[in-house]
Amino acid sequence: MAQQQQPQPQRLSAYAGYQHFLVTSPSPLVAHVEIHRPAKLNAFYEAMWLELRSVFRQLSSDGDVRAVVLSGAGDRAFTAGLDVTAASEGGSVLSAEPGLDGARRAAKLRRHVAEFQECISAVERCEKPVICVMHGISIGLAIDIACCADIRVCAQDARFAVKEVDIGLAADIGSLARLPKVVGSQSWVKDVCLTARDFSAAEALSVGFVSHVHESKAAALAVAVHMAEFIASKSPVAVQGTKELLNHSRDHTVEDNLRYTGVWNAAALQTNDVAAALMSGLKRKKPTFEKL
Amino acid sequence: MAQQQQPQPQRLSAYAGYQHFLVTSPSPLVAHVEIHRPAKLNAFYEAMWLELRSVFRQLSSDGDVRAVVLSGAGDRAFTAGLDVTAASEGGSVLSAEPGLDGARRAAKLRRHVAEFQECISAVERCEKPVICVMHGISIGLAIDIACCADIRVCAQDARFAVKEVDIGLAADIGSLARLPKVVGSQSWVKDVCLTARDFSAAEALSVGFVSHVHESKAAALAVAVHMAEFIASKSPVAVQGTKELLNHSRDHTVEDNLRYTGVWNAAALQTNDVAAALMSGLKRKKPTFEKL
Amino acid sequence: MAQQQQPQPQRLSAYAGYQHFLVTSPSPLVAHVEIHRPAKLNAFYEAMWLELRSVFRQLSSDGDVRAVVLSGAGDRAFTAGLDVTAASEGGSVLSAEPGLDGARRAAKLRRHVAEFQECISAVERCEKPVICVMHGISIGLAIDIACCADIRVCAQDARFAVKEVDIGLAADIGSLARLPKVVGSQSWVKDVCLTARDFSAAEALSVGFVSHVHESKAAALAVAVHMAEFIASKSPVAVQGTKELLNHSRDHTVEDNLRYTGVWNAAALQTNDVAAALMSGLKRKKPTFEKL
Amino acid sequence: MAQQQQPQPQRLSAYAGYQHFLVTSPSPLVAHVEIHRPAKLNAFYEAMWLELRSVFRQLSSDGDVRAVVLSGAGDRAFTAGLDVTAASEGGSVLSAEPGLDGARRAAKLRRHVAEFQECISAVERCEKPVICVMHGISIGLAIDIACCADIRVCAQDARFAVKEVDIGLAADIGSLARLPKVVGSQSWVKDVCLTARDFSAAEALSVGFVSHVHESKAAALAVAVHMAEFIASKSPVAVQGTKELLNHSRDHTVEDNLRYTGVWNAAALQTNDVAAALMSGLKRKKPTFEKL
Amino acid sequence: MAQQQQPQPQRLSAYAGYQHFLVTSPSPLVAHVEIHRPAKLNAFYEAMWLELRSVFRQLSSDGDVRAVVLSGAGDRAFTAGLDVTAASEGGSVLSAEPGLDGARRAAKLRRHVAEFQECISAVERCEKPVICVMHGISIGLAIDIACCADIRVCAQDARFAVKEVDIGLAADIGSLARLPKVVGSQSWVKDVCLTARDFSAAEALSVGFVSHVHESKAAALAVAVHMAEFIASKSPVAVQGTKELLNHSRDHTVEDNLRYTGVWNAAALQTNDVAAALMSGLKRKKPTFEKL
Amino acid sequence: MAQQQQPQPQRLSAYAGYQHFLVTSPSPLVAHVEIHRPAKLNAFYEAMWLELRSVFRQLSSDGDVRAVVLSGAGDRAFTAGLDVTAASEGGSVLSAEPGLDGARRAAKLRRHVAEFQECISAVERCEKPVICVMHGISIGLAIDIACCADIRVCAQDARFAVKEVDIGLAADIGSLARLPKVVGSQSWVKDVCLTARDFSAAEALSVGFVSHVHESKAAALAVAVHMAEFIASKSPVAVQGTKELLNHSRDHTVEDNLRYTGVWNAAALQTNDVAAALMSGLKRKKPTFEKL
Repeated sequence: MAQQQQPQPQRLSAYAGYQHFLVTSPSPLVAHVEIHRPAKLNAFYEAMWLELRSVFRQLSSDGDVRAVVLSGAGDRAFTAGLDVTAASEGGSVLSAEPGLDGARRAAKLRRHVAEFQECISAVERCEKPVICVMHGISIGLAIDIACCADIRVCAQDARFAVKEVDIGLAADIGSLARLPKVVGSQSWVKDVCLTARDFSAAEALSVGFVSHVHESKAAALAVAVHMAEFIASKSPVAVQGTKELLNHSRDHTVEDNLRYTGVWNAAALQTNDVAAALMSGLKRKKPTFEKL
Repeated sequence: MAQQQQPQPQRLSAYAGYQHFLVTSPSPLVAHVEIHRPAKLNAFYEAMWLELRSVFRQLSSDGDVRAVVLSGAGDRAFTAGLDVTAASEGGSVLSAEPGLDGARRAAKLRRHVAEFQECISAVERCEKPVICVMHGISIGLAIDIACCADIRVCAQDARFAVKEVDIGLAADIGSLARLPKVVGSQSWVKDVCLTARDFSAAEALSVGFVSHVHESKAAALAVAVHMAEFIASKSPVAVQGTKELLNHSRDHTVEDNLRYTGVWNAAALQTNDVAAALMSGLKRKKPTFEKL
Repeated sequence: MAQQQQPQPQRLSAYAGYQHFLVTSPSPLVAHVEIHRPAKLNAFYEAMWLELRSVFRQLSSDGDVRAVVLSGAGDRAFTAGLDVTAASEGGSVLSAEPGLDGARRAAKLRRHVAEFQECISAVERCEKPVICVMHGISIGLAIDIACCADIRVCAQDARFAVKEVDIGLAADIGSLARLPKVVGSQSWVKDVCLTARDFSAAEALSVGFVSHVHESKAAALAVAVHMAEFIASKSPVAVQGTKELLNHSRDHTVEDNLRYTGVWNAAALQTNDVAAALMSGLKRKKPTFEKL
Repeated sequence: MAQQQQPQPQRLSAYAGYQHFLVTSPSPLVAHVEIHRPAKLNAFYEAMWLELRSVFRQLSSDGDVRAVVLSGAGDRAFTAGLDVTAASEGGSVLSAEPGLDGARRAAKLRRHVAEFQECISAVERCEKPVICVMHGISIGLAIDIACCADIRVCAQDARFAVKEVDIGLAADIGSLARLPKVVGSQSWVKDVCLTARDFSAAEALSVGFVSHVHESKAAALAVAVHMAEFIASKSPVAVQGTKELLNHSRDHTVEDNLRYTGVWNAAALQTNDVAAALMSGLKRKKPTFEKL
Repeated sequence: MAQQQQPQPQRLSAYAGYQHFLVTSPSPLVAHVEIHRPAKLNAFYEAMWLELRSVFRQLSSDGDVRAVVLSGAGDRAFTAGLDVTAASEGGSVLSAEPGLDGARRAAKLRRHVAEFQECISAVERCEKPVICVMHGISIGLAIDIACCADIRVCAQDARFAVKEVDIGLAADIGSLARLPKVVGSQSWVKDVCLTARDFSAAEALSVGFVSHVHESKAAALAVAVHMAEFIASKSPVAVQGTKELLNHSRDHTVEDNLRYTGVWNAAALQTNDVAAALMSGLKRKKPTFEKL
Repeated sequence: MAQQQQPQPQRLSAYAGYQHFLVTSPSPLVAHVEIHRPAKLNAFYEAMWLELRSVFRQLSSDGDVRAVVLSGAGDRAFTAGLDVTAASEGGSVLSAEPGLDGARRAAKLRRHVAEFQECISAVERCEKPVICVMHGISIGLAIDIACCADIRVCAQDARFAVKEVDIGLAADIGSLARLPKVVGSQSWVKDVCLTARDFSAAEALSVGFVSHVHESKAAALAVAVHMAEFIASKSPVAVQGTKELLNHSRDHTVEDNLRYTGVWNAAALQTNDVAAALMSGLKRKKPTFEKL
């Protein structure tokens, strides 16, 4: 039934070149990005996160896209996180190189982490709202990525964990930077980050990590696509401004944000969308808005 | 019955000159401010937000007021937000002036938004705690104003929305600056800000936007007035210091706040209120405190 | 039964010299710190907070400790906060000295508050995770201390209050700095801080102040010790890095935290713990990690 | 001779109502504000700083003014600072009121200082560039005011001092906030602030406090007016944007400022002034720019 | 004679593909980047700043380069800034597109400015020290670029200007963000930014914008290359750490920088360079350091 | 002759226990701290910086001291910085311990650097103004320490260097955090930090690192003591407030500093020193001020 709601969405040709991400258009102005390595539980290796950055940079400036849904292919996992096997193979950044002293190894690691962070942050920097749909195994890098999305929903089979402590390291791709700012209870954040324990969809809902839980991945996806369509039907000037100002708000004082907002809207209010929106309200007709 | 609890509160003469705000004293040391334009669902136009600033500036320095309750007159709305009709009339800041280039229109809009923000922020800057009581339609500017209050309660008929996206603009009077810092779940904040959808009293309670929900406006008001009386019975040095230090905390690091707090209390602890409070504890008598 | 789970934990000899704190080891690598002045409801006076700082500084650099549980001795109170009787006795910092003008009294008070703050902050600065177990009376200073811990749990008989307003002062030892950052709902924070009203274990859970509530102090303690054991079994490089990066996150922007994290992990990833953790995962054996 | 350059500048009628400030127009689009209480060495009392705020607020939004020169009337002083006699008279905020405890006196003082600061800051907030011309006695409040100006010049007879320490207080109207950010050498800043010693025009020049020194007040004024004319001849979109972005820069990181700048110029570049300026460059004709 | 000191430096083959930048190696481990469009006074158009970013990104991670010298080709100009002719041609971002409303033009401009800024900032983000040598016309973008370098020197014929105001806009590629933090006197910064007037090499030296002035471009270049060699002879761990920590310092508090420094050096001190440097000091032999 | 001006200042008995610092009182209310290890050019090892912290903590709260002069014993050096021989001996924090992996060595180094930083910062945190007198060799740690002082003067034989790069490390005890904020020209700061080259007293004066240069150490010391006496003769409420507010200013925005200043002075203005200072001005008598 959920399949009926999303019958064979069309692949977006401009995104056909990506190897690990399938980008389709379930609805006009909406893009659906699937992490597509289901045989490996959608686990990431370096080429994938570089590709993730490319996908979201392209979406960010694609005038035909106004909202994005992000999910994982297959039944079992949104993503199982880092592909540790690949990461621990010879040639990995973590493997010791006999010739390097501690400072030089550190420089190499630091540059590696910085680029990895920058790739994942592309989801947050995308100018269009991103709705993340999680199901099944959603651990490690899954949390880093999800925290970069604007809205999070999940299937009830989702099993989450900030898993990094269990492989001997502090999460460094964004979970520790963003998770404390995404939910309210810091006691809970410290608990799941220090213990690396699993938490369920219900727990994720109760702490506000996800906005709603659905019975299946298909149902969650259907709702997310619907929400994306709804957002995409509104003024892109208003929607993209709202995302930008909320992201700015997280890292600035109220006073700073008010000042920035005033400057932002000084230009944004010079849009035809306000008149179009007001008119459509009066005429009870759906407005159309120009590309942004 | 609720009416019996608040029978004909006395109008405060010092505030009699305001046109759109009715200020009464339901109890000694408590002021009740009503947004008073019920025929228009308490919608705001420019003269009203200028007046709002005046009211709260006066309350801030009024030694006879120790706690403030803010609500909307009439049965239907706390406020329906901006009076769009008034705002879109000729002469409005949003209407194009043929002679102005984009930069000059921007300057005009920026100054307008900055002053509008500054008026609403007067509620936050008021040195006395403000308890906001919402009912019925509470959209757009209603959220900006409520976020400036210290404590929010509502009636179960309250219907909220961060409505601005629906009229083609990003909210710029404070909702995007303050709402993310007023509740925990950022997935929820992004959802309601990007979709402009309605949310109910129950949802507002579950995310922590309001502290409690009551069966009717009258009941909510009665509880708010009672809470204000309770706060007003305590040391104003302690209460106003607590408000100031909590507001400072939002926009500063813990370390900065601790330093500021130390300097603040270096003077505040030189009060007779500590002795009065301790004594009243021992004697089980209600203490009285001097004006502040 | 809970007693069976924690039969006579061994007193840690290195901490035997403390007068008001009992430090035992319920489990290898775990320290249990008890505030130990039960006859006075564990109320604090100056010598006690100076000692608290010493205890947590020592724990911070004790290679044999990887997780800490903090609780209050006796059945009645985690702590009743400041011992007001002691504080108001002659010689107290709050008592007037006739020879001092307002500025000089302020300097004395400011230095006093700053040192008091610094002592309590030692709990937060401790490099090892601290789990705080609260029961019974948990008011005033109890909140300041608990907010410095990483994870908070409580017994269902816990009765909390940010009590300072009731003795005529704004809380200045950290509650107003940290509580707003520890939970999500600022309406609730303002409510409990401005009214000084009691709140229950259930309310503390619902707002996210505590992570779970247990039927008794013994049960809460048993769970906390178990959680501490679990954390202590993991890589200390990973665990202590996670605590540090989460604490940094609270007071910095996401971008700043990502940069700091990259530099931190550039060294931390040069640990044998990653290999040990991965190997133990493959071999399904419990890894052992060197001291840190 | 310098007098010939500024013969009887016309008083600006819109500013005729001010009692302590004489506002003239030595040149189109330029306003010259004189502190005008020469009999008292232009010393300030409360009514004066309230008036200063009004004058600069009015200038800020006066479309006929594009640059401002600020100086002091008479031969002897730019300003001798606070009129201590007035300030220490009965009824002054500094005089003890027997009925008030230390906390209540502090609240009164704090509000007083905050408003005083806010008045002086109006010079900085003025959207038009302000050139401050100092001569003779320029002490105490003179420094607070001058630090709010954009450019400082002086006559060689100027005698400066951060004088507050000599009357038993730390400067609180802005000198300690702004002076360290206005010049480079902090050793010098600490020296003049801690000793309250005089410093000469030559010293002020060598540390970069003033941009140039002229042989007389008249000469300094002539140069300042000339500079103001020069600035006023340029695009007000460019000039006022430059002032705003430089002021923002002082209190923000480079990254934050670049982001703000991008948003600011997104509107500002939509001006006809760019074309007008480029065209005038090609045609070697003086461009004219619309009001802003 | 200066030519003798730099006879035909070898072109670095890895950088041979750049069209507008000539990269040579006047000395081992030193790269010399020349802006190379002398026929147009080295004025920039879009392809050039994109290329500038590529050059400096490549230098940043090139293990064979330890210090960089940046200068302009030809006798007449370091760079005359933006090539206004190119920028104002059809298709330019500044030219009006009839179909776009003010908000959409703003979005386009904002993205354009952001990318332009990001390209120029690559000079600052380069991990190796950059010494900028200016001569002749050095206006507009010249200042933006020079402010990104670490050390600035110039020939005595250099003529500088923050020129943007004269073409109707506020400088938006970094001059207003960085210049106030690069020199001490803010009165001078406001003067040159608001008036767009020229300033000489001598004035640049006296305010600390450049570190020294030389009689000719050749002499300045020779000294810069010598300085680069000197820096390149030292431990790259020490040099690159110093650059990073100084850049961090500009945008953070002292306390934050100390914390970051401690974490940085925790890895950096694990280098063989310390031993090598100490040993070379004892043996009075030039140390060699591994690549970084 | 200079010796005549400071004949045998009395050793302060409360500071007699220090081994490496000689504390005398050249004048009432003034303390003179000498780094006292002349045989080793006053080079520091661990016990010394721990002692430095103790000395300045004690001075900070010593009511009999109102200003401090800091200098180095002997003719040859203020201090030659870190005693590298001691630091590189077995047991040093820098020497490799075979049992430790890179992360554990990093933790040890980080804690070491943090404590070292904290000791040196005690000079900055001292509530009384500190005047630093430098002569002869003043390299490495000499710069870290001097940057913590309020005012810097030197003898003309002073030879300075930010020397750390030459021993293979980035300066981590404060020079890179504070030097850029102590002088204006960042081109100069980068130059001396990246090259580790010497700079002279004259150069230090011209960039504003020192406030004045004197012909000999004795002359510099005499002037510093005189300056300290002058400061010590003024209201300690005013002087110590000024130091605190200037230190706060460095790390905060103008707006934040103004707010903090208002709160600070709300207590500080309640001093008898204002009346005493004003009265002494009228009576032309030297005022006396109570201890602070």
